[in-house]
Amino acid sequence: MNRQIADALSRIRIRKPLIHHITNLVVMNDTANLTLHLGALPIMAHAADEVAEITQAASALVLNLGTLTPAQVEAMLIAGRKANELGIPIVLDPVGAGASQLRTQAGLELLSHLRIAIVRGNSAEIGALGGVGGRVRGVESVEGVSDPIAVVQTMAQTWGSVVAITGKQDVVSDGRRVIGVNNGHSWLTTVTGTGCMATTAIAAFAAVEPDYLVAAVGGLASFGLAAERAAAEAHGPATFKVALLDQVYHLTSEQLTTGARIVVLQE
Amino acid sequence: MNRQIADALSRIRIRKPLIHHITNLVVMNDTANLTLHLGALPIMAHAADEVAEITQAASALVLNLGTLTPAQVEAMLIAGRKANELGIPIVLDPVGAGASQLRTQAGLELLSHLRIAIVRGNSAEIGALGGVGGRVRGVESVEGVSDPIAVVQTMAQTWGSVVAITGKQDVVSDGRRVIGVNNGHSWLTTVTGTGCMATTAIAAFAAVEPDYLVAAVGGLASFGLAAERAAAEAHGPATFKVALLDQVYHLTSEQLTTGARIVVLQE
Amino acid sequence: MNRQIADALSRIRIRKPLIHHITNLVVMNDTANLTLHLGALPIMAHAADEVAEITQAASALVLNLGTLTPAQVEAMLIAGRKANELGIPIVLDPVGAGASQLRTQAGLELLSHLRIAIVRGNSAEIGALGGVGGRVRGVESVEGVSDPIAVVQTMAQTWGSVVAITGKQDVVSDGRRVIGVNNGHSWLTTVTGTGCMATTAIAAFAAVEPDYLVAAVGGLASFGLAAERAAAEAHGPATFKVALLDQVYHLTSEQLTTGARIVVLQE
Repeated sequence: MNRQIADALSRIRIRKPLIHHITNLVVMNDTANLTLHLGALPIMAHAADEVAEITQAASALVLNLGTLTPAQVEAMLIAGRKANELGIPIVLDPVGAGASQLRTQAGLELLSHLRIAIVRGNSAEIGALGGVGGRVRGVESVEGVSDPIAVVQTMAQTWGSVVAITGKQDVVSDGRRVIGVNNGHSWLTTVTGTGCMATTAIAAFAAVEPDYLVAAVGGLASFGLAAERAAAEAHGPATFKVALLDQVYHLTSEQLTTGARIVVLQE
Repeated sequence: MNRQIADALSRIRIRKPLIHHITNLVVMNDTANLTLHLGALPIMAHAADEVAEITQAASALVLNLGTLTPAQVEAMLIAGRKANELGIPIVLDPVGAGASQLRTQAGLELLSHLRIAIVRGNSAEIGALGGVGGRVRGVESVEGVSDPIAVVQTMAQTWGSVVAITGKQDVVSDGRRVIGVNNGHSWLTTVTGTGCMATTAIAAFAAVEPDYLVAAVGGLASFGLAAERAAAEAHGPATFKVALLDQVYHLTSEQLTTGARIVVLQE
Repeated sequence: MNRQIADALSRIRIRKPLIHHITNLVVMNDTANLTLHLGALPIMAHAADEVAEITQAASALVLNLGTLTPAQVEAMLIAGRKANELGIPIVLDPVGAGASQLRTQAGLELLSHLRIAIVRGNSAEIGALGGVGGRVRGVESVEGVSDPIAVVQTMAQTWGSVVAITGKQDVVSDGRRVIGVNNGHSWLTTVTGTGCMATTAIAAFAAVEPDYLVAAVGGLASFGLAAERAAAEAHGPATFKVALLDQVYHLTSEQLTTGARIVVLQE
């Protein structure tokens, strides 16, 4: 799969796909920059009056539930229906699912009304959405699901989406195959919004790669590999974040071919 | 008091308290990161539909009036009532009080309807809220109150809160004692949101330290000491901000014990 | 004109004008910091209830259409009318004009109901607003207007505003004269919000310089020169952004006098 994701990265750089984000207020600057550094183009837009028009011009749509409001859920449904109508992949990041009814319900509502290409969350968020355990504190997973491999596979089947649980090892499934991504670095846990950034990376890959399992793996391996390369320059979490964004920009297809650490957990 | 605040910092690292922020759009990323670097967990949530539930799971609640809207004031009252009901400390940052009726009135409304543990502002903001002088330009104090020691003490008595005025010397009172904190660095005045970050640091301490005078002093001394350590690495305000966040992460209880410069201004 | 803009920069540092921003959620932190580093004071405020009061105390008003909502358009009209009443210059940044009806219509509505001092956009945004061509993808210009010199001049006459199209060469006109600014660096295209930051720099100059052609040139030359100086320290887009903000802070009137590369394109 290393060759496939490296080719997808090259396509991002050539096609510069537009990624429409309806996302949270905390990470908006970082995810817009990550989109740009990866080679794609970001647009952040959440007004119900314009989201359909913006999605129509985009190649992928990110729906991120952090700092959610009911008005945003409505905008997400409008944008999501347009995306489904046009075959534009939707990537869902259920930030804080399990932390409030609003977020859990919104996640479930989006999953039931829209065809979601990829769902990425931490272990507790996916567990809360799937009703299979896990416990969050705020937006952090404090107790994950007991068997992430089984959970991603089951939830992928239930939701008809590729599902990714990120953590020390990222676990991704399309309902049949289960892939592990071993890239990443412990500094990622010290910075807010790195999960949201991983979701954005996945969306950029989904914009150019129709096999969404490959897209999810490509986004996670790229982001994780950039983190590994950034760690050498980090003196703390803030210098790490700056180095991480720089490394996303410098990441090459060659580095991804050799550096992605992908394992097949279930054929 | 140095030993007490150093112990509190250790408790933050061990307990990882969740800090619920209803805060402004300018500083949201920086204050979420500061929370995390200090050892606590952030959650930013402002929808009226979820704030009570989020506060319920938190160990401190930050109410910050920058980029305020009437909907946010309503959410603050809902979250604040829940916090009071459960004994969760509220830290109020009246950003821009005195700059508009909306902000001044909101500050007074929160102070009259809620039991606020700690209020932190610059000299003019506290002066405007207290009706005792001071003049702001935007969110900057251009003319402080004439006698900050008397003002923090009086306002602490009036509001039944610990009150902190930050500036070259930070001055903190519980209505009886007045403490000065001499940590900090002039670079702090060149970066937006450093006042908001100081408030977040105070909230993390208030989450683990029931003596709110000690908590306010602990947050201010920690933040100021990190700023001093960051100054050596600064080539300008942006490198200073990056270094400041790194130093907050690296700050140890030992450094705080020896480095906190706390003076008793009134017994 | 180099002397004039250098003198204006000195006045910014002395007067510290307050710049009221009603702006987008992506760049709010960066533009607040840029304002501060340049020597002015920022305030971000968008609630309809307070914008008139905030504008009244300000020396310039920025209206930026990124992440627009109908409520924000209303607030912009209230603030804009107050600014016009008091002779406070308005700087309009039509982010994403052409990308949605909401943004294009809002730009035209603001231009027709308010007296706008300066409009700054990329080539496609100005083209879309002026109905003279250009094509955007999201907030990026993918196809500019064919003759920017003619377009800025025509649109300046039509709108009664100074108009600036930024790009490899920035082109500015008051409807008669056309000036080119050749400062800047290609790193600027790798970071989100650099256009918005340029607009903020222009607003700081407009707050102290009544000749708005000079103000627009001053803001663009200062920002572009800081970018040139930052490029030497950049290892990627994120280190570039940090260095850029540092360099804005360090920029002197002397450097601006010798470093601004201003050409008269039409007398």
